[in-house]
Parts: sequence; structure tokens; C-alpha cells
Amino acid sequence: MPTTTKALSTPSSGAPLAPTTIERRDLRGNDVLIDIAFAGICHSDIHQARSEWGEASFPMVPGHEIAGTVAAVGPEVTAFKVGDRVGVGCMVDSCGVCEFCKDGEENYCRKKTVWTYNDENYDGEPTFGGYSQQIVVSDRFVVNIPEGIELDEAAPLLCAGITTYSPLVRWGAGPGKKVGVVGLGGLGHMAVKLAAALGAEVTVLSRTDAKADDAEKLGAKDFRATADGSAFEEFKDHFDLIVNTVSADLPMDSYLGMVKPLGVMVNVGLPSEPYSVQPGSVVGDSKVLAGSNIGGIPQTQEMLNFCAEHGIGATIEKISADQVNDAYNRVVDGDVRYRVVIDTATI
Amino acid sequence: MPTTTKALSTPSSGAPLAPTTIERRDLRGNDVLIDIAFAGICHSDIHQARSEWGEASFPMVPGHEIAGTVAAVGPEVTAFKVGDRVGVGCMVDSCGVCEFCKDGEENYCRKKTVWTYNDENYDGEPTFGGYSQQIVVSDRFVVNIPEGIELDEAAPLLCAGITTYSPLVRWGAGPGKKVGVVGLGGLGHMAVKLAAALGAEVTVLSRTDAKADDAEKLGAKDFRATADGSAFEEFKDHFDLIVNTVSADLPMDSYLGMVKPLGVMVNVGLPSEPYSVQPGSVVGDSKVLAGSNIGGIPQTQEMLNFCAEHGIGATIEKISADQVNDAYNRVVDGDVRYRVVIDTATI
Repeated sequence: MPTTTKALSTPSSGAPLAPTTIERRDLRGNDVLIDIAFAGICHSDIHQARSEWGEASFPMVPGHEIAGTVAAVGPEVTAFKVGDRVGVGCMVDSCGVCEFCKDGEENYCRKKTVWTYNDENYDGEPTFGGYSQQIVVSDRFVVNIPEGIELDEAAPLLCAGITTYSPLVRWGAGPGKKVGVVGLGGLGHMAVKLAAALGAEVTVLSRTDAKADDAEKLGAKDFRATADGSAFEEFKDHFDLIVNTVSADLPMDSYLGMVKPLGVMVNVGLPSEPYSVQPGSVVGDSKVLAGSNIGGIPQTQEMLNFCAEHGIGATIEKISADQVNDAYNRVVDGDVRYRVVIDTATI
Repeated sequence: MPTTTKALSTPSSGAPLAPTTIERRDLRGNDVLIDIAFAGICHSDIHQARSEWGEASFPMVPGHEIAGTVAAVGPEVTAFKVGDRVGVGCMVDSCGVCEFCKDGEENYCRKKTVWTYNDENYDGEPTFGGYSQQIVVSDRFVVNIPEGIELDEAAPLLCAGITTYSPLVRWGAGPGKKVGVVGLGGLGHMAVKLAAALGAEVTVLSRTDAKADDAEKLGAKDFRATADGSAFEEFKDHFDLIVNTVSADLPMDSYLGMVKPLGVMVNVGLPSEPYSVQPGSVVGDSKVLAGSNIGGIPQTQEMLNFCAEHGIGATIEKISADQVNDAYNRVVDGDVRYRVVIDTATI
């Protein structure tokens, strides 16, 4: 029998989220039923609930930063047992056999990555996300949340954590490296914590001085407001790596100018306008403009283990379900320090 | 006493090159006097001789694809002796002590890379390039041309060779990798030869079918004309690496669409307009838009050794000095297969 569970759902683009009940599928052999304790609010939840990224599927239950405990497992599940502390991120299925799935890069599955919400399973059923009290997910897309990270502080790691960890590791953030983090929001604050824990020297580049004190507390060595443009000169050819977490249209040539020869600027946000980049900004000193989109399941587990070892969780504001629509507006206004997490028991 | 030598020089922007005599400095302790046998014509020679890359310094003796033999050495030179077959590329000096020079990446010297022509030495004297019968260069910027590469076919390796070898190696061209080469000119034909010798499966992407037969002879497995746009669909998410050797303004999103998730498009040309790149073209599948500018001296030597091992030289047209102005027009028209080399004995 399917499981009926409470969820926060929006019936149409931009409409408020409201409590409802949804059904989760019967457990298949490899499925895990999870009692969700906390679900983080990612800015992409808002983009999709408001159809800002193209046509979306409604009713929608957003949420891909999911932390909870295992409530039941299918007969073929061996990696998880009832009571395990677990997480689910942006994906809930993939083909499992293509070159990317085999490499643990399920987010690039050649058949189709099934996203946690606003998508369809391979059987055509819609996916509903983590703003809910229970979810059923194939065991390949469930990760362990190690002891030492509270579930509420773990939830945002499933998207904001892996989204920043993956490019930091790919592009070599570590001892002796200078890393710039552009923007200090949900993604940016994780980039700072993770880059500092990886051993890099971190500078936060934020539009104004408002978050300068926070930057230091999060692990940054330095902070510069970028609004007056002086940072572009001061930090010319300075950074081995810049992680750009903002979705605003930035002057890419100015930011690339702060990257050392052979260095990298990696973007994890999706601004609405195309980048405009002078060829000389990358060719002259063999620089790199890269993008990065979450990360695979093995790396997500690696990231969670890394966070546990280094005592890292997200810096969160916990809210009850009735505050979620207000929280959406606060996220859009940048008025959150640094991630909102819904206590799903309050739905 | 300074050495007087014949050279091809242009007195002002866009004026024809004509024979003249210039002086080369007295040998310093670490200097090498080279009898130049051949000098390749790089498109960048033309850009600079015509002031197309900003203000240039005249009179100008272009040429940074230099092959010849050692005629004399300064008292402190130990790595070279009279009669050695040697080459000089785009650089003739750098500080030698900054982090990049120490890493053998003299092209990013923090003090100033001294370019082979259209530049000034640290002492303020102008640099004159390889369209000449002799040159004096610090031994740190002289490389050995191994037996097995003819000097005329070696000359273009000093720029076109290293410019394509460096990004191919940096971005992992090798067995099991699919490499696209955009443009089949001086740079492109070297990219094909080198990528194939590195073990990659090479596809040439050229505007028309005109060079399809040549592509195969150079080592490409496949060839597509891009003018009708069908290649962008056929090769969607196909290449691990695209090396773009053309300086025209290309639709970057279409080319990035042919790159696999996590793959790389690297540009070595300098088009006049900014790239326009949709953020999703790099962020969605964690792709990379990179630039690359020549390579350091150790890698230049590595490239020459690699070419000797694999029997690779440039495919050239040899000309006499009186054909140089005509050759410039032919290079601009794309009417050269695939590199023009000046026999400097004819100056």
C-alpha cells in the first residue's frame, strides 16, 4: 500500500505553499522509506515554484535538501537499516549503467537524471520533494549522515554543500591556494566553510560590507566589498580559484582579472543573461571559466564524511511550516543567515 | 662587437617587409648566437605588423618560430655548443625567479615576459624576431631540436606546436578521448597531428568540406563541415575536449553543446568580439571554457621530444624572402597548407 504523508505543496506557479497530503509509492526491492526531519530551502526551489526556470510541473512539493531517519527498507536493501540517519539531495534516480552513472556522476546520466521534485520518474509518475514528512527513494540515492552533524544542519549540505564542495575539490582548493568566494548566501557560506576546512586561504567578495564580520566567523581570512570596484585592482591576478555563488550578472572580465594565470573561475549560479567574456581574459594567461552543477552520489557521501570530520554543518534558521511562504520572500531578499530549514514535524 | 645580420623588416604599420640589416647584441655570459635557417610565419606576426593588436613598435622584424644551429655561445653556457640544432619560440627573457618562472611557465612571468619581437628587453633595447639570419638569445630560452625533425618542419613547432600541445596535455587528450579540432590552419593542423599522436580520436570541425581529405591525412578519424549547423546536433555532448584554433567569432553555446558533461572547450585564438556564453552552457553539465597561450620552455622541449619520437613536423610551404609579403596575404586568406616557412638564407 502506498504511504500517505503530509507535505507542503503549491498548486500553481507562484501560489503559496500550503499543507496537504501526498502518496509515496510502495517500497520496491531497493527502496528506502525515510522519515524526513528537516528540509532546507534552496533558492532553486523558489525559481521552480515560480516557474522562473521555464515551465514547471504542478502541484509541486519542492525540497532537495533532505535529512531524516530510515523508517523501512525494501527486501533488497543492504546498505541501510531502520533508524539510520540519512539524507537525500537533488536526485532520486538515474539509469545506473551509462558511463557517467558508472563513474558516480549520476547528475550527468545519459538516459535522464530524475530530479527530486518537479520531474517525472522513469515510470512517468511525478516526483515530490522534501517539504514532506516521508519520502521513498531508491537506495542508490540515499547517503549516510555521519554522527557529529545534527540533522537540521546537515539538510542544506545535500545541495548547498555538494554544490560548493564539488568544484572546490575539482579545482584543487587546498593548502597554499587562494580561494575567492563571490557572494555570502546559502551557497557562499558553505563554500567558505568548506574551502577553509580544505586548507585554502579564503577571501569573501561581497557587494557590501554587511557580512564582513560573518565572513571571518565562517572561516574567511579576508573580506572585500566589491561595489566600488577597487577589489578588482587590489586582487589582480591573485586567486587560484574563484567560486562564484551569485546568480546576478557580473562583469566576468573583472572577476577573471582577479584570477592568477592558469587559474579558474567557477560559477555555480544561473544568472539570466549570457556571460560576456573578452577572449583575452581567458586566452592571455590560460585562465578557465567553468561551471559546476551539484555532484555525484559518491562525492556527496565524501562531502558529508568530510563535514563530520571537520565539524561542519550549515548555519541555519529553523522555521515551522507556516513560515515557509514568508521565508521564500526573505531568501529572495537575501535576508537569511544562511540557510532556512523547515522542521517538517510542523507540517 | 655586436653582430650585424640580414633581416626582413617593416618600417611602419602595414608597410611591406623588406631586407635590411640589424645588429644583434654582444654575447653575454649566458647568451647563444644562433644561425637561423628557417622562420615560420604565424598569423600573429601579421596582426602585429599591421598593428591589429594595438600599438606596435617599429621598425619591426617579426618571427617567433625559429630553427637553426648554434654559431657561438657565451662563456657561461653549458647546455649548448656550436653546431647544435636549436629553436627559439615566442619568448626570449623572463625574470627567472617568480613562482611562474620557477615552475617553467615563463610565459606568465610576474615581472614581464620579454617577447621575441615587438617588445623591449629588460635593458630597454627593442627585440627583433626570427625573419633574420642570426639571433642572440639567453640560453634559458633556447631549446634543442632533436634529430629526426628537419629544421624547416621544426620551425613552426616553436609556436603552432607548443600552442596546441600545451592545452592538449593540460586537458587530458589521450587514448579513449574524443577531441574536436575547430579550424584546420597552421594551429589546427598541428592540433590534429599532436592529438592523434597522443592517442585521442580526432574529429576536425571546419567551415566547409574543402580540407576533408587533408584532415584524414593529418591523422583525424572524422571530419565535419560546420557551415550548415548539423554537426552541432550530431555531436551533441560528444567531445571530451574541443580545441578551437580559429579567431573568428563562433557561437560558443553551440560549440559547448558538443562537449560532454565535465568536458572542456579551449580557445587558442583571439577573436575581436567578446564571447557570449549562456550560463547554462557551462553550469548545467559542469563544462569548462578555457583559454591557452603558448606554453613554458620545459614543455616546449617536451613537445619537441614528443614530435621527434612520433615523427611529427609541421606541414609546410617553404618560401624565399621575396615572397614574404605575398605570403602574408595568403595566410590572411587561409590559402596556405599549412604553415609558411621562410628560408632565411634568401634574405
